[in-house]
Amino acid sequence: MNKQMKVVIIGGVAAGPKAASKVIRMCPEADVTLIEKGEFLSYAGCGLPYYISGVVKDQKELMSTPVGTVRDSVFFQNVKNIHVCNYTEAVDIDRSKQEVTVKDWRTREIRSIQYDKLLLATGATPLKPPVEGIKLNNIFTLHGVEDAEGIKSAFSERKARDVTIVGGGLIGIEMAEAFHKMGARVTIIEALPQILSFLDWEIAQLVTKHLESKGVKVKINTKVTAFKGTGNVEKVLTDKGENACDIVIMAVGVRPNVTLAKNAGLYLGSEGGIKVNEYMQTSDPNIYAAGDCVETMNRITRKLCFMPLGSIANKQGRIAALNICGQKEKFQGILSTAICKVFDFGVAATGLSERKAKEEGFQVITVLSPAPDRAHFYPTAKPIMMKLIVDKISNRLLGTQVVGFGDVAKRIDIAVTAITANMTVDDVSNLDLAYAPPYSAAMDNIITAANIAKNKLVRAYTSITPMEVKEKIDNGDDFIFLDVRTQGEYDAMRLENTTLITLGKLRGSLSELQKDAEIITFCKISLRGYEAALILQANGFTNVKVMDGGILMWPYKVIK
Amino acid sequence: MNKQMKVVIIGGVAAGPKAASKVIRMCPEADVTLIEKGEFLSYAGCGLPYYISGVVKDQKELMSTPVGTVRDSVFFQNVKNIHVCNYTEAVDIDRSKQEVTVKDWRTREIRSIQYDKLLLATGATPLKPPVEGIKLNNIFTLHGVEDAEGIKSAFSERKARDVTIVGGGLIGIEMAEAFHKMGARVTIIEALPQILSFLDWEIAQLVTKHLESKGVKVKINTKVTAFKGTGNVEKVLTDKGENACDIVIMAVGVRPNVTLAKNAGLYLGSEGGIKVNEYMQTSDPNIYAAGDCVETMNRITRKLCFMPLGSIANKQGRIAALNICGQKEKFQGILSTAICKVFDFGVAATGLSERKAKEEGFQVITVLSPAPDRAHFYPTAKPIMMKLIVDKISNRLLGTQVVGFGDVAKRIDIAVTAITANMTVDDVSNLDLAYAPPYSAAMDNIITAANIAKNKLVRAYTSITPMEVKEKIDNGDDFIFLDVRTQGEYDAMRLENTTLITLGKLRGSLSELQKDAEIITFCKISLRGYEAALILQANGFTNVKVMDGGILMWPYKVIK
Repeated sequence: MNKQMKVVIIGGVAAGPKAASKVIRMCPEADVTLIEKGEFLSYAGCGLPYYISGVVKDQKELMSTPVGTVRDSVFFQNVKNIHVCNYTEAVDIDRSKQEVTVKDWRTREIRSIQYDKLLLATGATPLKPPVEGIKLNNIFTLHGVEDAEGIKSAFSERKARDVTIVGGGLIGIEMAEAFHKMGARVTIIEALPQILSFLDWEIAQLVTKHLESKGVKVKINTKVTAFKGTGNVEKVLTDKGENACDIVIMAVGVRPNVTLAKNAGLYLGSEGGIKVNEYMQTSDPNIYAAGDCVETMNRITRKLCFMPLGSIANKQGRIAALNICGQKEKFQGILSTAICKVFDFGVAATGLSERKAKEEGFQVITVLSPAPDRAHFYPTAKPIMMKLIVDKISNRLLGTQVVGFGDVAKRIDIAVTAITANMTVDDVSNLDLAYAPPYSAAMDNIITAANIAKNKLVRAYTSITPMEVKEKIDNGDDFIFLDVRTQGEYDAMRLENTTLITLGKLRGSLSELQKDAEIITFCKISLRGYEAALILQANGFTNVKVMDGGILMWPYKVIK
Repeated sequence: MNKQMKVVIIGGVAAGPKAASKVIRMCPEADVTLIEKGEFLSYAGCGLPYYISGVVKDQKELMSTPVGTVRDSVFFQNVKNIHVCNYTEAVDIDRSKQEVTVKDWRTREIRSIQYDKLLLATGATPLKPPVEGIKLNNIFTLHGVEDAEGIKSAFSERKARDVTIVGGGLIGIEMAEAFHKMGARVTIIEALPQILSFLDWEIAQLVTKHLESKGVKVKINTKVTAFKGTGNVEKVLTDKGENACDIVIMAVGVRPNVTLAKNAGLYLGSEGGIKVNEYMQTSDPNIYAAGDCVETMNRITRKLCFMPLGSIANKQGRIAALNICGQKEKFQGILSTAICKVFDFGVAATGLSERKAKEEGFQVITVLSPAPDRAHFYPTAKPIMMKLIVDKISNRLLGTQVVGFGDVAKRIDIAVTAITANMTVDDVSNLDLAYAPPYSAAMDNIITAANIAKNKLVRAYTSITPMEVKEKIDNGDDFIFLDVRTQGEYDAMRLENTTLITLGKLRGSLSELQKDAEIITFCKISLRGYEAALILQANGFTNVKVMDGGILMWPYKVIK
């Protein structure tokens, strides 16, 4: 290892400072320079929606250590011995000379910095599509601290009442909650048939219903055609009508910042990010790249994808640093795990969605399993709704989605770990997960869901999805839609076109039903629905199905 | 499969009813009889402390389905077609005749029931050691609903003020919280040198400090020698003095109920439970056993152990049922996972403790890593303290312990899944866990802990445990105990014998320290302590160590 190793890192947020800190820990003699275009370093970009809404009070909290020290250039110099150049942009890389040309935006000075190893942590930039009127005032993207300040001041100065968010992805949804908390009327406009495209449709639908229950308007299948206003934006035109608005947030995705890499002749991948190997090394062995500017391998499909998230950037920054310092270490890829808070709902997913798994050629069975997130008698128990996607051939868990009022984070992280380990649903159902009433049921939700998958794999019963049932209703098909809940549950909330026979009375009511009729059973979560189907089958009924997920996961309107 | 298969199940709580329900689902034609000695069926025994304290209001909630239907014998008959005999005790098994003799405690009738397959789910009984005075009134164990009612009424009738709990295990600790909530003065008496013996000493010590902060007295290394009183218990005598008490809870463990199995000539294991194979089958192929009465294999040591927990009982009941119905299914073993709520602390462990791992011959490294449980700037962030036990040879994670105010359940269940999959700390550090500020930091606590383990495995620095430091202090060793926190942190809370040099000032203060002195660095969590050690080493200091876990995991008194 070169004792005087010069390491230059371009990009001062997430992957960059992580790598810089790790390099200096591994090689205290190294000469480490961190170059950042903007003023601020090492801030938590994912915290910006919470700063805008006031949940996080002070901008400084986002750029401080847990004990409150602000991570500015003085901090990096004194504590870490890292030389920081902020307000400084890297404008060119000369690979043969191993030199980066940088420009200081305050002094306008242009100079060159030598490197032995270079790390590109150039991040990504929010897309601003060239729609008419996109340059009007008060149309924002959310990227850095400056954007957040701009949004905050525009909101208070304009006394904004109507906010339109274009794009129903993670940032769009988090911003919807933020503005709602600030007292605005919020509309989300999404071009696709659903928000949060990493979820399957029926799960995204549960989130949409939750947003609507809070008063957020969600317009799917809707394309923005223009923004109108004089100076300030005043309305949004779409292919489905128009909306008044005081502020617009464009949250339609980001693209990796690759100009520097591209101009230097480094390879890019098919998704537009910088191409790196498992060691986070670009096509030039002296140049590494990490974070939102690179492409990353999905562990299940083994394909490259673009997944700009702080958790991934930090891991990659650390691994790049280890390799820069000569310790061979691999980044093992991702599962496209995502989580977000949607008011009092948690929403999380990992691995492949059903849609994606089918695109990839997997034959899958799916499970919809709603249940309380801890012992149902424990007062803080709240429902969560879980979907599993399971490979029919290998019985491997391929994907998991969980939404609801209860603890979704725990279940998604169990799923992440299980999928990473190639566990089958049998393996999952055997996990010795921690049980006490304040934390889970004796059979945790994911164990129950795995057991349902096992029942389906051995064809213990026939199931039908809520979407298939809805289609039957809409087609006017002749079938008995059998609700086996209690009268009290039925009176509080029910579905259309149902027949109510409480489970406890079913054995005594068999004569009321035709033996050869198509019967689709359900209850609140479809456990009693399942028992009802077994009773019917045991008594000679030949065409019985259980509706997945019960009334709790019905993705359409319920009658209240 | 026999169409008229007769299945008899002995034991009406957890494993028994779970198996009965599953058998009837798999084989609706089966004739299933469930025999229960007491009145109540299928109640959540683990919920009893919460019923006693009033967190759970109604006894019925513990024996109801999530939608409020009480699981009594009528429910089992009507909904599940399971014939229940409660108040009925199985007194003998005739294996050659495949017959169980039962006695109805109400009618005193004795009769025989034929079986094709028999399941023993006879549970376990709390130990009541033969101490002088053990038969006095108001000395309870906590096992069934009747015990809970007895404790509740004794408490209110006697207006009990002083409660002594003998045994600092899971039930003892949960009962300590329950009585504290009810307004009692609570003392826990534990014969061992620590409470919660599945934890390592220093982690148990953090729990003890938390109990004491709530006003619960914890007496370790203390043996009960007698109970005194006239009719009612009035005091407890121990080898360390005496205690006044109005109520005593004996929570010193349980023993498996094996008399029936033993008398029938079935094999028992070395730990006293019924011996079963992976299919939950006893030494008689027509007799299965599941739940608190059996021994279970630890997945890491491959040794049999006795682990009476509802989560395990339910899984085993399901698997026994599948095998009874002819579907080959294996129970894969346990990790001795445990969790409990201790006031506003969560306490959890899985896999091997350091002590246990060393007993089993593993060479281990350990990590103590405290940190906020989510983004530190997110207002609901709370600290958790984590210990990892890692095999030095294979780098496999062997065990994890987590305690603290924050979300311990998620991290322990990630660890359960990772240990089950034989993951190394490298695998754990690569997990694509779900990140958003309301749920975790960009690097989750378990990823950070795994990274610390990796640093230790490559000897990136030298560490020392808090116990080793304490010994040095007590021995009067000559060393510099270097606190690198801020003055404000120091003023709020500090350790004895320390020197304060804030990390940011360390590079400028190096001349104050002797280059060959033994220096032990620490901070709040020992991250700044680690950076301080690297600075010292880079500047020629030759004998520098970092104290594991920082001040947050110091298991002794701190100065406030």
